[in-house]
Amino acid sequence: MVEVASRRLPHPSRIVIFGITGDLAARYLVPALAALEKAGRLAAGLEIVGVGRSEISDVELRSRLRTGADGVALDSPVIDRIAYKRAALDDQSALGDVVRGGGPAAIYLAIPPSLIERAIRTVRSAAPAVGTRIVVEKPFGEDLESARRLNALLHDAFPEDAVFRVDHFLHKQTVQNLLGIRFANRVFEPLWNRENVEQVEIRWDERVGLEGRAGYYDRAGALRDMIQNHLLQLVSLVGMEAPATMTARDLRDRKVEFLRAVRGPTRDEVVEGSLRARYGPGRVGDRELPAYVDEEGVDPGRDTETFAEVTLRVDNWRWADVPFILRTGKAIGQDKREIVVRYRDVPHLAFGADYQPMPNLLRLELNPDRLALGLNINGRGDPFDLEELELSADLAPERLPAYARVLLAVLEGDPVLSIRDDEAEESWRIVEPILDAWSSDAVPMLEYPAGSRGPAESRCRDGSDERR
Amino acid sequence: MVEVASRRLPHPSRIVIFGITGDLAARYLVPALAALEKAGRLAAGLEIVGVGRSEISDVELRSRLRTGADGVALDSPVIDRIAYKRAALDDQSALGDVVRGGGPAAIYLAIPPSLIERAIRTVRSAAPAVGTRIVVEKPFGEDLESARRLNALLHDAFPEDAVFRVDHFLHKQTVQNLLGIRFANRVFEPLWNRENVEQVEIRWDERVGLEGRAGYYDRAGALRDMIQNHLLQLVSLVGMEAPATMTARDLRDRKVEFLRAVRGPTRDEVVEGSLRARYGPGRVGDRELPAYVDEEGVDPGRDTETFAEVTLRVDNWRWADVPFILRTGKAIGQDKREIVVRYRDVPHLAFGADYQPMPNLLRLELNPDRLALGLNINGRGDPFDLEELELSADLAPERLPAYARVLLAVLEGDPVLSIRDDEAEESWRIVEPILDAWSSDAVPMLEYPAGSRGPAESRCRDGSDERR
Repeated sequence: MVEVASRRLPHPSRIVIFGITGDLAARYLVPALAALEKAGRLAAGLEIVGVGRSEISDVELRSRLRTGADGVALDSPVIDRIAYKRAALDDQSALGDVVRGGGPAAIYLAIPPSLIERAIRTVRSAAPAVGTRIVVEKPFGEDLESARRLNALLHDAFPEDAVFRVDHFLHKQTVQNLLGIRFANRVFEPLWNRENVEQVEIRWDERVGLEGRAGYYDRAGALRDMIQNHLLQLVSLVGMEAPATMTARDLRDRKVEFLRAVRGPTRDEVVEGSLRARYGPGRVGDRELPAYVDEEGVDPGRDTETFAEVTLRVDNWRWADVPFILRTGKAIGQDKREIVVRYRDVPHLAFGADYQPMPNLLRLELNPDRLALGLNINGRGDPFDLEELELSADLAPERLPAYARVLLAVLEGDPVLSIRDDEAEESWRIVEPILDAWSSDAVPMLEYPAGSRGPAESRCRDGSDERR
Repeated sequence: MVEVASRRLPHPSRIVIFGITGDLAARYLVPALAALEKAGRLAAGLEIVGVGRSEISDVELRSRLRTGADGVALDSPVIDRIAYKRAALDDQSALGDVVRGGGPAAIYLAIPPSLIERAIRTVRSAAPAVGTRIVVEKPFGEDLESARRLNALLHDAFPEDAVFRVDHFLHKQTVQNLLGIRFANRVFEPLWNRENVEQVEIRWDERVGLEGRAGYYDRAGALRDMIQNHLLQLVSLVGMEAPATMTARDLRDRKVEFLRAVRGPTRDEVVEGSLRARYGPGRVGDRELPAYVDEEGVDPGRDTETFAEVTLRVDNWRWADVPFILRTGKAIGQDKREIVVRYRDVPHLAFGADYQPMPNLLRLELNPDRLALGLNINGRGDPFDLEELELSADLAPERLPAYARVLLAVLEGDPVLSIRDDEAEESWRIVEPILDAWSSDAVPMLEYPAGSRGPAESRCRDGSDERR
């Protein structure tokens, strides 16, 4: 597939990680570099520079990184390649060389949202070499206006193809399988429409609670933290039209085309079709959790939700009137991360009326990754009774963690799985009316016990319940 | 579902098995009665009478039946219920009471084809009670003309709904699953047509060779033994339109509608689209087999095939130009009994051209029973490469053997899975031109080594080969 104007950025001579002492670097980026090194996918000559404000030496930094995060020690020769650069983010004189010197760089902003604009300004004023790319993490802004401002700021310094807005969900192999499933098989795409699909559910329930992340999470909440970015990306892979090629232009054009067709819900639609909730005290497995509002660092006055569900409508020919339900929650009793395409009932059932067949469900589960198709077959007793059967396959574990693939795409200058400027803005356009209605209390804040299934009002149907 | 005029036959007071000393009775019918008894599905008052010509007592018969067939002993209280009646099939005075006395009977003709007409005449002249049903086995005639004659003879004595032409394949649970798969699921039927299906394969390869059955088999051959009945029945379940109800009238109307649309091949089409072959000497597993023509009881002059393959065309809107390939062989290296729906390629592949995706295959395997759907998904390396994945589920073992279900249908007077008169005739209409062309040597007799995959010319594509 040749893409028009698909010149890729040159390989960078170094990667510069702003925020090397932070959580993201320790938990994801350095392990990802280690995984690339181990897989022989990291250029031997690539310099690695970590920028931070802590008063530590290279040796101390490396020792910390070896200690790792979440109690997982990391032992990799890549750690010895990391040079530490101590500097404040707005210290242009200290950072000029790091940004500019020695050819194009990959600059990874692994820093809190409040510091992003300042960092971009510093990078810009250092006049980075042509071919330098910049990587920004979620959250990309906190509403439509701030996202636009951020885009404008980035475009002052970088062409769009040198801006990598990361959504590591897109780098999960099983998420990418949505593309294969839809567009490399004859059996799904012809039925992938309102004639045959009743409902789409994207669900990201997690057992984990706040886990000490109040500083970030209490300002974000479930809607901003998960739905505005990750789950909308999943939805766009489920809902988009078939791209002519899998290149950056076509794939992202089709995703944006879909997002543009997602209706920004009216206030009434938000009231009717969304849920927000937070967890009360409860037990998840063998852990007792306090109520969210009693977690350390949480300000109950912010009214932050730990569970969010929205029902989106897509105003196009393929999907008119088909609900797309996006749901995510923390401290739910069972991890459940899946994309479920729920097919309509058969138009006429020739079998006995005693048994109401289950709708067919195509289920793409993540963590562990599994693909399943729920069917009805003849029963074992009376041949004209029905019973359920699930065809399934476990998906092979990923060879590289998602963040290693993120870095690979950045280093190779391939933006196909990066969020384009217009995608980021469309996502905020969709979510903003929900944020507005919620912040004006048009939708009640529900409570669910930690360890429960979440609010009973959810429209996500639990296949395993229905079966009983 | 209420069927118009669906009055069922009354329960019979007894079952009369003509040929109780024969192979079919020992291998299938008596074990089936035992299974029904064990499952509590056999009326306690049902008399069981076995008719044969051997000079043995009840006690001797029962002892033989306990010895069982194929070295499998059978221990069941049902055996003690079998009363032996010694009589020649045309001995009307001896058989009058057995056929007529004590209310309606179920008369099972478990006898060689050469004796069928005589037995029917005997039964008819005994004037059986209203509600008596008669069961006939394959082969139902040996060509269209003899099948018509047999139907006429049967209709002289019985209404069509009292005639059970048995195809025990239809009583296999996994065969019945074709109905559930197609008509109780949304995901298959909309694509079940020429737009989306490239080819249908019905394959019945067996490792067993002749196994001492030359007396029957050498006169029948693979085409008559398997394709004319069993495989055409499977094809009609795959190809028929959706029945409005699963009752005897609708289901069989739809099967006949399909069979009537199957083209009786021209001589050129037979030459072009059929294969016949017989096995030469070889080894299947650890058994050495002689060439078929050297097996005991085989007359090489009969030119009997042990492998047959025909490609059928269906002249209707749903299936025009889609080949239906029916294949069966003995002494093949690997048992392979399956129905494969091979979908067309996707119309456009947006992924890299390096990898040609497999066509999707829906595979219904029998013995052991398994349902599988072959798909393409994203590869584990480059996300835009593809690799294969098979969703599958093993199907639960049958609760009752197929022949127990055959008997149950006969005893309950339910003809839904019995072959109707017109079905039997249509099947011969389809097969007869092939028999004619073969017997005039228009198609060469190939040879394949016992234990091989059969003739290399087969149009059945072996999915597991293609994958490599």
